Amino acid sequence: MPTRVYLDWNATTPLRPEARAAMVAAFDLVGNPSSVHAEGREARRLVEEARAELALAVGALPRNVVFTSAGTEANALALSPGLRGPSGGPVERLLVSAVEHASVLAGGRFLADRIGLIRVTRSGVVDLEDLKARLANGPPALVSIMAANNETGALQPVVEAARIVHEAGGLLHVDAIQALGKIPFDIKTVGADLATFSAHKIGGPKGVGALVVAEGILGLEPVLRGGGQELNRRAGTENVAGIAGFGAAVKIALQALPEHAERMTTLRIRLENGIRGIAGATIFSDGVERLPNTVLFTAPGLKAETAVIGFDLEGIAVSSGSACSSGKVQPSHVLSAMGFDPAVAQGAVRLSLGWSTEPDHINRALEAWRKLGNTLLKS
Amino acid sequence: MPTRVYLDWNATTPLRPEARAAMVAAFDLVGNPSSVHAEGREARRLVEEARAELALAVGALPRNVVFTSAGTEANALALSPGLRGPSGGPVERLLVSAVEHASVLAGGRFLADRIGLIRVTRSGVVDLEDLKARLANGPPALVSIMAANNETGALQPVVEAARIVHEAGGLLHVDAIQALGKIPFDIKTVGADLATFSAHKIGGPKGVGALVVAEGILGLEPVLRGGGQELNRRAGTENVAGIAGFGAAVKIALQALPEHAERMTTLRIRLENGIRGIAGATIFSDGVERLPNTVLFTAPGLKAETAVIGFDLEGIAVSSGSACSSGKVQPSHVLSAMGFDPAVAQGAVRLSLGWSTEPDHINRALEAWRKLGNTLLKS
Repeated sequence: MPTRVYLDWNATTPLRPEARAAMVAAFDLVGNPSSVHAEGREARRLVEEARAELALAVGALPRNVVFTSAGTEANALALSPGLRGPSGGPVERLLVSAVEHASVLAGGRFLADRIGLIRVTRSGVVDLEDLKARLANGPPALVSIMAANNETGALQPVVEAARIVHEAGGLLHVDAIQALGKIPFDIKTVGADLATFSAHKIGGPKGVGALVVAEGILGLEPVLRGGGQELNRRAGTENVAGIAGFGAAVKIALQALPEHAERMTTLRIRLENGIRGIAGATIFSDGVERLPNTVLFTAPGLKAETAVIGFDLEGIAVSSGSACSSGKVQPSHVLSAMGFDPAVAQGAVRLSLGWSTEPDHINRALEAWRKLGNTLLKS
Repeated sequence: MPTRVYLDWNATTPLRPEARAAMVAAFDLVGNPSSVHAEGREARRLVEEARAELALAVGALPRNVVFTSAGTEANALALSPGLRGPSGGPVERLLVSAVEHASVLAGGRFLADRIGLIRVTRSGVVDLEDLKARLANGPPALVSIMAANNETGALQPVVEAARIVHEAGGLLHVDAIQALGKIPFDIKTVGADLATFSAHKIGGPKGVGALVVAEGILGLEPVLRGGGQELNRRAGTENVAGIAGFGAAVKIALQALPEHAERMTTLRIRLENGIRGIAGATIFSDGVERLPNTVLFTAPGLKAETAVIGFDLEGIAVSSGSACSSGKVQPSHVLSAMGFDPAVAQGAVRLSLGWSTEPDHINRALEAWRKLGNTLLKS
């Protein structure tokens, strides 16, 4: 039996050996990082080392990094109605792009009637003219735009968005969860006021994320209250081993980024060229800049649910659009926002690559797609 | 140099070998539990096995277990204004005992003017007459009373409280974080409508907790929204390895409970008898039922901060009251609620024992306390 091929790296990545080693080492530490004795101080040191590592990687100060339990919690924490910049009053409403992750679309602590959606183009890129129009029409806004979409891989114009948002007196939150380790991302270069990250998308453990805040941003309201951890921004005993694993994963992912991105791009282009030739397949966001590792495609008559199971039976793990929800296949809100009708939005398959993806995995995926595509043509 | 003695088990316990093994095994699983392919299903299986383990241990149905990132998040989730029982309208206010953990005192999603405090006696036990009076005086309440206090170890009359609360048409939440694995705890026996637990207090990993809900309780509002994980009660990719570690820790902790409790009690009584004989020390909650493993004491002129450092220099990790906050030594809100003045509330030292505590550790702790006590008497 041939080995399994894992092509669902945007859902979660295998644990990097460096992260695993850091976690196993942390298992030997007994203390609670809030305890003042030697055991507590040693646990604290691990947490602070990881904080420094992430801060360095994304251009932030360590004191502005808040560790959370996942990207979802980091996004919930970011979307805080009391936020304000060094000058100016607090944001009074939230504008999110229509292709954001469900945890951003949920709107954090903003009331439903204070949340607006920013349109995207047919290619899945945020429409900056729509952003400008919405900003012009109301009080200061917190704007949330992801660095790269998890389903299509489309990169978003976050640098331009930051300029537009700041000119309008607003603040920009960037969900950089899919960008970290795949493309360069630095909050200062981007001009992001807040950015969120997740460990398990870069080879760290599941159950750890972070919110990073630019210097001078005030008014962040905690989601979890009680103890004074994370400088009173996130109560609860820290996931010491998980945070250590996140730090180790960030370090290796950033070191490997240039070579990794080049390798992914080469493999992805080979994969895309193969896919296109079968069963009339088309690739979403084909004409725009995308993540090096992500392909979302469909073909006439394709049903994502059947396709994912079909790939699985051929030994290949793929996903139907966003996989980090309930396991049920629903029409992709991303494709709906891009203007595709429900039949199409329910027929998209995502292949996402990672550091251990080999050329032979691409061959295996194409073979499987050829089989599935032939069935489609016959039906 | 003699080995370190760790007597701060209520702050966090060393990772149990069984939990470590379960986590390391989980590190090899690649998938996201929400993914439908084989890798996803395998990760899902681990999460569900742990869920069944915890449910069995505390008398709940697996579907009523919600995994969270820690006890703090579990408490925040529990304190949900929309909660209602099988009959009757939603709770409209929150009553919490004055000795609850900071994450409960924070009040969850209840507005500040909807939160009332229930008095405790000088021994740190919830005053049930005060509870009755407060329940009689207002709309249906959610009441939150811990099973055992983390600082004094005092057990709380949660069974009687459940009866009183239900007669008044309210619901009872029990923070059972310090009770699990130390005393028997079953939500049906207690009559709790909601109960919270934390992995790292029983030898599981830091960064995992759970809320358990009795069958028929409705209206739980999520704190973290987005994906449909945990039956739409807690969004975010599951901490698969951590949850597996929690499940393994629950299993071994419950198996070991009877023998463990007896052993702790014997060691604790030896420790207490020794402490009392030195520098005029007194033990808090001395006359009431307490956890088998917890001693909170003070002596005239004792300063907790100095004492914790003094013990630490003697190679012994102890705590000053609650240690899961910011590392700063503040007067204990628990002792203040018990009617002790700030000088006393700032001078309490907690020793908490665990499964690897040896008789010799007790000797070492008493030697250290003799030294510190002598310094006190001289000053």
